[in-house]
Amino acid sequence: MARMTQRRKIHRFVLDGTGTEYPVRFKEDVLAAEEPLEIRIGGTSFAVTMRTPGDDFDLVAGFLVSEGIIRSHSDLISLRFCAGEKDGTQTFNVVEAQLRPDVPMPDTMRHVYTSSSCGICGTDSIEAVRKTIHFDPSLDGLRVPVDVLAELPERLREAQAVFDRTGGVHAAGLFKVDGSIPELLCLREDVGRHNAVDKVVGWALRQDLLPLTGLVLQVSGRASFELVQKAALAGIPILSAVSAPSSLAADLAAETGLTLVGFSRGHSLNVYSGRERLTGSRKAVPEAAISA
Amino acid sequence: MARMTQRRKIHRFVLDGTGTEYPVRFKEDVLAAEEPLEIRIGGTSFAVTMRTPGDDFDLVAGFLVSEGIIRSHSDLISLRFCAGEKDGTQTFNVVEAQLRPDVPMPDTMRHVYTSSSCGICGTDSIEAVRKTIHFDPSLDGLRVPVDVLAELPERLREAQAVFDRTGGVHAAGLFKVDGSIPELLCLREDVGRHNAVDKVVGWALRQDLLPLTGLVLQVSGRASFELVQKAALAGIPILSAVSAPSSLAADLAAETGLTLVGFSRGHSLNVYSGRERLTGSRKAVPEAAISA
Repeated sequence: MARMTQRRKIHRFVLDGTGTEYPVRFKEDVLAAEEPLEIRIGGTSFAVTMRTPGDDFDLVAGFLVSEGIIRSHSDLISLRFCAGEKDGTQTFNVVEAQLRPDVPMPDTMRHVYTSSSCGICGTDSIEAVRKTIHFDPSLDGLRVPVDVLAELPERLREAQAVFDRTGGVHAAGLFKVDGSIPELLCLREDVGRHNAVDKVVGWALRQDLLPLTGLVLQVSGRASFELVQKAALAGIPILSAVSAPSSLAADLAAETGLTLVGFSRGHSLNVYSGRERLTGSRKAVPEAAISA
Repeated sequence: MARMTQRRKIHRFVLDGTGTEYPVRFKEDVLAAEEPLEIRIGGTSFAVTMRTPGDDFDLVAGFLVSEGIIRSHSDLISLRFCAGEKDGTQTFNVVEAQLRPDVPMPDTMRHVYTSSSCGICGTDSIEAVRKTIHFDPSLDGLRVPVDVLAELPERLREAQAVFDRTGGVHAAGLFKVDGSIPELLCLREDVGRHNAVDKVVGWALRQDLLPLTGLVLQVSGRASFELVQKAALAGIPILSAVSAPSSLAADLAAETGLTLVGFSRGHSLNVYSGRERLTGSRKAVPEAAISA
């Protein structure tokens, strides 16, 4: 936890309703830490992401799942922090992943970042945004009562440690929902919401739990295309977001057979695709009201 | 505006306080559009970003400023949409930028994405995250009353068109604050908060307004390292965010002499660096109270 937050001296101004200012307070504040992480595969730099330090091996493992490079724990031989050679210090900001020799090296760089003639003018590059989804969430028979699903944002919020102190991180939580009380299997926080999801997926891969059939991924923010794609690549049948989804998020969810929930606010929620996975509230017909 | 939002059929569930469910409503909802944009420089694919369509030339221009590649309108010869050759259709999702011949081609790809031996193990790559800042926000003599600054989130919110309809986009607004009423010079919205800032900066570059001395950039979400860097690269002296900054955002702001404000909520705000640019509220000593 130590590296996930940092202390800074700040000035706090408080105004009343008329704009009148109270004396400035000079105080110490706790900020969510943000540092770059370089991900290397077999000695080659693959990507740099800004992230909140902590659970870095989960982040790298999940990132590799989200990029469509690996799909099971056995694809990953090792993860290790790599020291810089310039001054030999260990910054814990470079992670080297060793993949099983028969795992094809990623071609993302080739598609997205290298030169190509204007002949293909973007088509290939943009298509490379869409990864091949190995698992099929559409086959997942999970059914969840709507009131159970509506509870998850509050459960997630209760479990968030870093947010309580900084107000500045996103969270992703993986829930088992087949009992009467939702069970939080894994919670991860990060300044980047994509990273929070990658950390959860990477945790699951390292526990050899992929595909994540029968589970719900609850996120604290909005649902973008990339979050839906990350969920689908991990085989998760339901993605639920506290805020709005984008158009492309809804489209990809419908296409892959994933249930996408948005604006989940305790008392209401919207379903953008896969409505068949939501069953009626357990309290739709209150027993007490009938027997009274 | 047409391409910025899209309509989708959704199911809406509403629960009462006890979890009792009201009948499901099947309705039409407006979602913030999200589509990939490929940015090409002189025929070479440089990056793909997911964005809300609209103001795409501003986005590309601002992205090139944020990458440290261009810094004035004269660096940019032209911007045009490029049709795909596969089927010849114009998707408006590929933009080709032509730079002045003496503008050095970006080396971001080399630093961040290509192979290098483990000898330099990340140091160079991570350092490449930090761009050279051409302008110097620390020299900017702007002073703003705290109550004027505290007003900006509300002004931004009032002007947001897409958010009103979707609840799903971030906004960035450039404000002139030397009069008694803050003047909104440019507002841009996007599903990605980085894009919203790039669109504002790109608008300014195309108006030949860089560096943006004496102005305030107000953003609707959190302040990450990248947002501070984008503001500094555009020469903006004050970045104000509605939510939390990260540790590295505060560090970079202090380093570059930029004023960083966070948790700006109308009645209060926190200053993480550059407190000298905030002057007392115009109502700190109400004239009426003195003459009464």
